[in-house]
Amino acid sequence: MECEQLFSRALGRSSYNSITSASSDEELLDGAGVIMDFHSTEDDNLLDGDASPGSNYTMSNGGGGGGACSSTHLLDLLEEPIPGVGTYDDFHTIDWVREKCKDRERHRKINSKKKESAWEFTKSLYDAWSGWLVVTLTGLASGALAGGIDIAADWMTDLKEGICLSALWFNHEQCCWGSNETTFAQRDDCPQWKSWAELILGQAEGPGSYIMNYFMFTFWALSFAFLAVALVKVFAPYACGSGIPEIKTILSGFIIRGYLGKWTLMIKTITLVLAVSSGLSLGKEGPLVHVACCCGNIFSYLFPKYSKNEAKKREVLSAASAAGVSVAFGAPIGGVLFSLEEVSYYFPLKTLWRSFFAALVAAFVLRSINPFGNSRLVLFYVEYHTPWYLFELFPFILLGVFGGLWGAFFIRTNIAWCRRRKSTRFGKYPVLEVMAVAGITALVAFPNPYTRQNTSELIKELFTDCGPLATSQLCQYRSLMNGTGTTATSATPGVYSAMWQLSLALVFKIIMTIFTFGLKVPSGLFIPSMAIGAIAGRIVGIAVEQLAYFHRDWFVFREWCEVGADCITPGLYAMVGAAACLGGVTRMTVSLVVIVFELTGGLEYIVPLMAAVMTSKWVGDAFGREGIYEAHIRLNGYPFLDAKEEFTHTTLAREVMRPRRSDAPLAVLTQDDMTLAEVQALIAQTSFNGFPVIVSKESQRLVGFALRRDITIAIENARRKQEGILLNSRVYFTQHAPVLPADSPRPLKLRSILDMSPFTVTDHTPMEIVVDIFRKLGLRQCLVTHNGIVLGIITKKNILEHLEKLKQHAEPLTPPWHYHKKRYPPSYGPDGKPRPRVHNVQLESSSSSNQNEAESEEEVRLLDPSSH
Amino acid sequence: MECEQLFSRALGRSSYNSITSASSDEELLDGAGVIMDFHSTEDDNLLDGDASPGSNYTMSNGGGGGGACSSTHLLDLLEEPIPGVGTYDDFHTIDWVREKCKDRERHRKINSKKKESAWEFTKSLYDAWSGWLVVTLTGLASGALAGGIDIAADWMTDLKEGICLSALWFNHEQCCWGSNETTFAQRDDCPQWKSWAELILGQAEGPGSYIMNYFMFTFWALSFAFLAVALVKVFAPYACGSGIPEIKTILSGFIIRGYLGKWTLMIKTITLVLAVSSGLSLGKEGPLVHVACCCGNIFSYLFPKYSKNEAKKREVLSAASAAGVSVAFGAPIGGVLFSLEEVSYYFPLKTLWRSFFAALVAAFVLRSINPFGNSRLVLFYVEYHTPWYLFELFPFILLGVFGGLWGAFFIRTNIAWCRRRKSTRFGKYPVLEVMAVAGITALVAFPNPYTRQNTSELIKELFTDCGPLATSQLCQYRSLMNGTGTTATSATPGVYSAMWQLSLALVFKIIMTIFTFGLKVPSGLFIPSMAIGAIAGRIVGIAVEQLAYFHRDWFVFREWCEVGADCITPGLYAMVGAAACLGGVTRMTVSLVVIVFELTGGLEYIVPLMAAVMTSKWVGDAFGREGIYEAHIRLNGYPFLDAKEEFTHTTLAREVMRPRRSDAPLAVLTQDDMTLAEVQALIAQTSFNGFPVIVSKESQRLVGFALRRDITIAIENARRKQEGILLNSRVYFTQHAPVLPADSPRPLKLRSILDMSPFTVTDHTPMEIVVDIFRKLGLRQCLVTHNGIVLGIITKKNILEHLEKLKQHAEPLTPPWHYHKKRYPPSYGPDGKPRPRVHNVQLESSSSSNQNEAESEEEVRLLDPSSH
Repeated sequence: MECEQLFSRALGRSSYNSITSASSDEELLDGAGVIMDFHSTEDDNLLDGDASPGSNYTMSNGGGGGGACSSTHLLDLLEEPIPGVGTYDDFHTIDWVREKCKDRERHRKINSKKKESAWEFTKSLYDAWSGWLVVTLTGLASGALAGGIDIAADWMTDLKEGICLSALWFNHEQCCWGSNETTFAQRDDCPQWKSWAELILGQAEGPGSYIMNYFMFTFWALSFAFLAVALVKVFAPYACGSGIPEIKTILSGFIIRGYLGKWTLMIKTITLVLAVSSGLSLGKEGPLVHVACCCGNIFSYLFPKYSKNEAKKREVLSAASAAGVSVAFGAPIGGVLFSLEEVSYYFPLKTLWRSFFAALVAAFVLRSINPFGNSRLVLFYVEYHTPWYLFELFPFILLGVFGGLWGAFFIRTNIAWCRRRKSTRFGKYPVLEVMAVAGITALVAFPNPYTRQNTSELIKELFTDCGPLATSQLCQYRSLMNGTGTTATSATPGVYSAMWQLSLALVFKIIMTIFTFGLKVPSGLFIPSMAIGAIAGRIVGIAVEQLAYFHRDWFVFREWCEVGADCITPGLYAMVGAAACLGGVTRMTVSLVVIVFELTGGLEYIVPLMAAVMTSKWVGDAFGREGIYEAHIRLNGYPFLDAKEEFTHTTLAREVMRPRRSDAPLAVLTQDDMTLAEVQALIAQTSFNGFPVIVSKESQRLVGFALRRDITIAIENARRKQEGILLNSRVYFTQHAPVLPADSPRPLKLRSILDMSPFTVTDHTPMEIVVDIFRKLGLRQCLVTHNGIVLGIITKKNILEHLEKLKQHAEPLTPPWHYHKKRYPPSYGPDGKPRPRVHNVQLESSSSSNQNEAESEEEVRLLDPSSH
Repeated sequence: MECEQLFSRALGRSSYNSITSASSDEELLDGAGVIMDFHSTEDDNLLDGDASPGSNYTMSNGGGGGGACSSTHLLDLLEEPIPGVGTYDDFHTIDWVREKCKDRERHRKINSKKKESAWEFTKSLYDAWSGWLVVTLTGLASGALAGGIDIAADWMTDLKEGICLSALWFNHEQCCWGSNETTFAQRDDCPQWKSWAELILGQAEGPGSYIMNYFMFTFWALSFAFLAVALVKVFAPYACGSGIPEIKTILSGFIIRGYLGKWTLMIKTITLVLAVSSGLSLGKEGPLVHVACCCGNIFSYLFPKYSKNEAKKREVLSAASAAGVSVAFGAPIGGVLFSLEEVSYYFPLKTLWRSFFAALVAAFVLRSINPFGNSRLVLFYVEYHTPWYLFELFPFILLGVFGGLWGAFFIRTNIAWCRRRKSTRFGKYPVLEVMAVAGITALVAFPNPYTRQNTSELIKELFTDCGPLATSQLCQYRSLMNGTGTTATSATPGVYSAMWQLSLALVFKIIMTIFTFGLKVPSGLFIPSMAIGAIAGRIVGIAVEQLAYFHRDWFVFREWCEVGADCITPGLYAMVGAAACLGGVTRMTVSLVVIVFELTGGLEYIVPLMAAVMTSKWVGDAFGREGIYEAHIRLNGYPFLDAKEEFTHTTLAREVMRPRRSDAPLAVLTQDDMTLAEVQALIAQTSFNGFPVIVSKESQRLVGFALRRDITIAIENARRKQEGILLNSRVYFTQHAPVLPADSPRPLKLRSILDMSPFTVTDHTPMEIVVDIFRKLGLRQCLVTHNGIVLGIITKKNILEHLEKLKQHAEPLTPPWHYHKKRYPPSYGPDGKPRPRVHNVQLESSSSSNQNEAESEEEVRLLDPSSH
């Protein structure tokens, strides 16, 4: 998450190096002292397939992708496509409509050739099946990686406590499987497994060995944490955080090169194991989604259908994120719904089906690897046998309130801390910070058995109900076995001490999670949140259980709590609490309930879960409508237009569009009476990403839209290939060259890069409709017209700024979005070279960048409200 | 489904009666001879809240909903809203953008008033919670109705065989519960339950009693069928069919008044019970969705937020359809996914969550009613204990192929039969047809025990695995109880005869289902399809089982089929077959797998299910891409723009827009130089639903769009309220009145009905983008411009026609869409009275209805490809 600072520093440098990989030499030197020159351009290719912008990249799907794809296809069939037109720069937003259109064009081309030969037919079959192939591969890889991570993390977590002498590569549990002395109760004490004190001091008991174990625990925790942060810092700064905010942004159509590359994948996989093993209060679920998306992105390079098309690639990524959650929890359906509800932006039904398939493949690979040794997909498999009673809804709703409060509190404090890290010198020392947090965590965690153990195991223990064979301290009830075989439930002092330890663990987890989420290591949020909820839930559950035991005659208990019968299931409370806390933090709803439902496999408990999750969402929303991921997206200033938020203001398009009244007039091109010199001057003077093309200065009616990048590339290309192109050559966008004087140089036709179907709205269109259009169609920009005359332009960034401005009135806590925009890397000047950073602000700025020719017609002025 | 003929006849009449209810006196007379005058205007209100178009209906959400809602709100705050503007005629398409915009306007108004008083605050709270309230009520009602239907249908199905003497209202099973003589094996034979032969002839055995039972069975079946079809025909013609195609169409934004009214609800509930009990080959699942949607629609009238807004109402209907599937199968998550995948058009996340809630409430109400007496939500609760083996995927995929073939075959034959019914005189006698089908069904069904019993019970029996207590003939294995307690599986002659009977039942079901779906009774398709699949699956399952028993040494069986162990679960094959057949017919994917997964509650069998469902979908798609619902939508000519289909052609907007080159020029209004007489003449001469407003005849630049209905209403209103409006009054759409000669009459300002933000595309826009915009934004029409000048218009119907034309080249089997358009009722003339039917074709016709003033500018002619 908080990779963002490394991120911006890397960008700051790399922008001069024509955007190479995200890490730079400076980083390599100050991190671990290792210098490696691995960051070639390979990594850049991974997300976008376009290594060096504006240069030698050839598009294979012809026909000039920049314009309205099929119209240019029809009209300019004979003109060869200009290489590079229709690709994107890093940190730019893709145009969904054009991309999808490009794909259909490609699809048509393949289909029309299908009957020509057997080879073409095979190619068309390959093309048709490539979608299924790529999700299958992604599912296989995600499942295998998740299995590997689980096994490695288990082994390394146990390494903090001791080692298996008979086989070094076994973890504690596996080590003791082979032992024939192990009874069920003492399965954890087997001679093959040696704690560090036993190994070094030769004694297993006593204060000396305790201190030795304590020291070794802290030592390993610090080593793992150091290795993790060093690897992230040196090799792949993008590998830190949970990755979900960035993936949401990427899926919404933003381009972050290398974020899903193979280095990120490799480093994230390794450091995730290290971070989890170091005992930090973090989970592996979010990072697993990132890992799965990296797999999806890498495999999509095997298929031209996906590698060459940003919109199609995002379909694969949606499926990959479903696979990621599927393996994180063993919940394939929950994974699909998570992808649908939380992550994805554009989710057609075909993607739904493929996501489901990817999730299933991943889940089955994971099951075959069987990292938990229980033949179950899921991490916390539980089965309860008692039903719940209506009265219990009250404590469940209470847990929901707790979850909502925790979520709101966590989001506020975590964001405040992250902002502090970002804005002060403190954020300059990520390695030290990680070491400090890891050290404190290890030191505080060791004495308490509930914090010392792996968080997943803790959750599992809390979820599990006390059966007759339970060995947990939580289950030390005075067992009054009666005729029916059920246990009566009076707690022993052991349970009370466990309650105390749990309470301390709760406070510890709450504090550490706030400081941990945002460190420069891979860190997920699901497991810590669930742990906090499970602890709270278990405490409430035991309290209710004791209440029912001692006050069996109260009317609420009388009906269903018979003497000697189990009427309360504390494990269920833990599960409800976990769902509520996770719901409070992420504001997920349906997918969360389905994930937890898949953990238990019974429809019986859906109502308690729903009641808690709904309460939690409502309570959380009362303190701020954003989930943690949206909050981090805003904190980092990603251009993400949230599809969930409703726009409820009364602004009109003309109030949001640029240029504003105080700005210089709109920079436009005319369709046939500008010279090359004029066009180049306009491009040099302004930093807009594109220019509307109008009929003439006099009539100002809209013809189309041309992208700056495309114009630059096309002019470069024409200079290279066409002769007679001079500075006073006429540039025209019409079908036929304008009538020119006899001595004028050869004109330059740029129709092929002209988008002849730009999206337009009128100046009176309410912004809510404009926002809706941008969201649903995935636009980059939209032109504003009045009575057919072009007045201005609205870009996605204008909308985001506008939303941020409106939001600030309501919630002044959060920083305005444009504080962060300075981090966007520059675009390219007319010469194809990077521009200096000062020109970096494009289109989104209201004051600095709207210089161009003044042209004011009477009609435009009519729009001032004063004239009405 | 095939209500459509009654439907169109009813429409033909009612169009002259200013659209009253869907049934007419003629229908009342010829059906059952009963004359009732219940069809007042109450029923009409139910779907649309607008009884008589263009008259006394007042909109409470002010601000003139016809124009761009917030702009007119801002500009024309002082003008009072014109009653009726912003509502819709029957059989018209709603404008999603405007509706949503209207809702936000209303929301803002309530929110701004919130702090004024405690009463306003309460009102705003009520408004905020009304969404949850309405889905809760819908869930409660759907659950209760489903429970009632289940109980009633069970009782009446058993009534065909006999009666419970001790308590007439008990069905067979309940009757024998009280009996203490009943052993487990003979639970169906208790003295309280008398078959008709016992009761009438006094003997239970012998050919005489067999014939008596046969006769009574047929008698009851025919009586129920007659009652059902008579009720439908007389009281609510909309109650027939499954309702899902119509609900899909309504959810996509079409208006069918009374389709979800209370008469439909009442009659559909009653006739559903009768139709199911009559033993026809139909199920109750589709109709239950319709019933739930009726509940949702009726309850939405309690809340102004939903009753006054067509778009918001459709959110409730989406949730209601989820509740319907939830109670049909006891699968709440499957229900939500069904609503998402199959039914809904616009499905924001808020609706997802509410759908989930409605589905849950409904499921729990149903569970409390407990109609199946097993404390389970689901109809076919099964639990299998044996895992499946990789080799078994082969028969599963075979079942998938069968399912796909069956689906394709069913869709073709059923559609062909329905078309025959529609086009020949044969369709004129729905009662006779139902009686004939019911008679044949009863006569053929009785001798075969598998067809005689209730289809749901048959499916349950087929799904259930043979345990040691199984009494079914299918489980008469030579039981070789060995040490491990499992049964070896050599079939007895009983199993072979059961196989024969099953095969006959399969053929019978296949034939009868084709003729049954489309009858004028409520008829679902899920249960018959599942039954066919389950029979086929069970047959395959038993065959594989016997193969494994006799060829245990084959290498495929050797590894996992030990002697004496159960290695094949024929019940699982039945379930896989059922899913495959249902998938073949409906082409559902994820939701289907989830529904079946919820039936079994185990993740174990997802891979077999997925393999079969995917195969079935692929095989089915090879023969035609439409599911049965889409096929019926097309057959009935509903204006449904399928979001699933991809548009893959290279047409441009200008090739689809009207007017075509051969037509008269576009009918337009100018913003300030037309007189009232000219406007009225234009309205009288044309039958378009709306007119673009341009700056002037000379410049032709687009100003906005005005709907015919709104203009008519506004002129009527002005005539009533404003004085001095004469035929030569100037009509203007600008903010200020044009400068007029001194003696001219008072001008008429119509700005408040002008939509100042019409959607526009350029003529070069590829149709795939246009189709995408229509689908995603739910547009009704879109204007086509070239260089700012309006050229033409594309309506949803133009797009549908175009798609149909393109599809015809590929699949000439289906009739063109416009064959059916004549059934749309007429719009209203300038006087508010219905126009004669001959003018009924609006906008969608290319030749007959495009007459208006000729105005051709040079620019427009430029667009002919010849000039390029």
